[in-house]
Amino acid sequence: MTDYAARIYITLRPSVLDPAGVAVESGVHQLGFTTVQNVRIGKYVELRLAAVDAAAAQAQLDQMCDRLLANPVIENYRFEIEPVAIATHQ
Amino acid sequence: MTDYAARIYITLRPSVLDPAGVAVESGVHQLGFTTVQNVRIGKYVELRLAAVDAAAAQAQLDQMCDRLLANPVIENYRFEIEPVAIATHQ
Repeated sequence: MTDYAARIYITLRPSVLDPAGVAVESGVHQLGFTTVQNVRIGKYVELRLAAVDAAAAQAQLDQMCDRLLANPVIENYRFEIEPVAIATHQ
Repeated sequence: MTDYAARIYITLRPSVLDPAGVAVESGVHQLGFTTVQNVRIGKYVELRLAAVDAAAAQAQLDQMCDRLLANPVIENYRFEIEPVAIATHQ
């Protein structure tokens, strides 16, 4: 088993309205950053997991995202993994 | 002025408790992914902005993060920018 560090990015599908993004856009405009547009707010999840190989780790992450982390009806997700050299290293 | 696409990652500082991360960790364990640990939930922000060069864009993003997007007391942030070829391209 190898330990992997995973970074998961969960974003609203482009067709889904993002009221939080609109609010942030209004806020940064009020701070003077008037060129800012297309603000979209998503989630970012970091975690560690163990798997026999990278393909198995990716399969586990796909299932986690589909079943718990993301709402596939309104959200997309993508992730990156990298092996962690020392399993107990934080 | 050049248009830049920015991706901003906002994470809780390592010393700050993350109850949402603990809840997600418990959830994925119950789904059978028992090797998962160190789950940390952060925010992921995508936006577009215009600036004269990359350094100016980064300076604007630093200010936005410090003043609005992140809470510097409990959160860290990092971001990536890349020039967008066609300003009106979504």
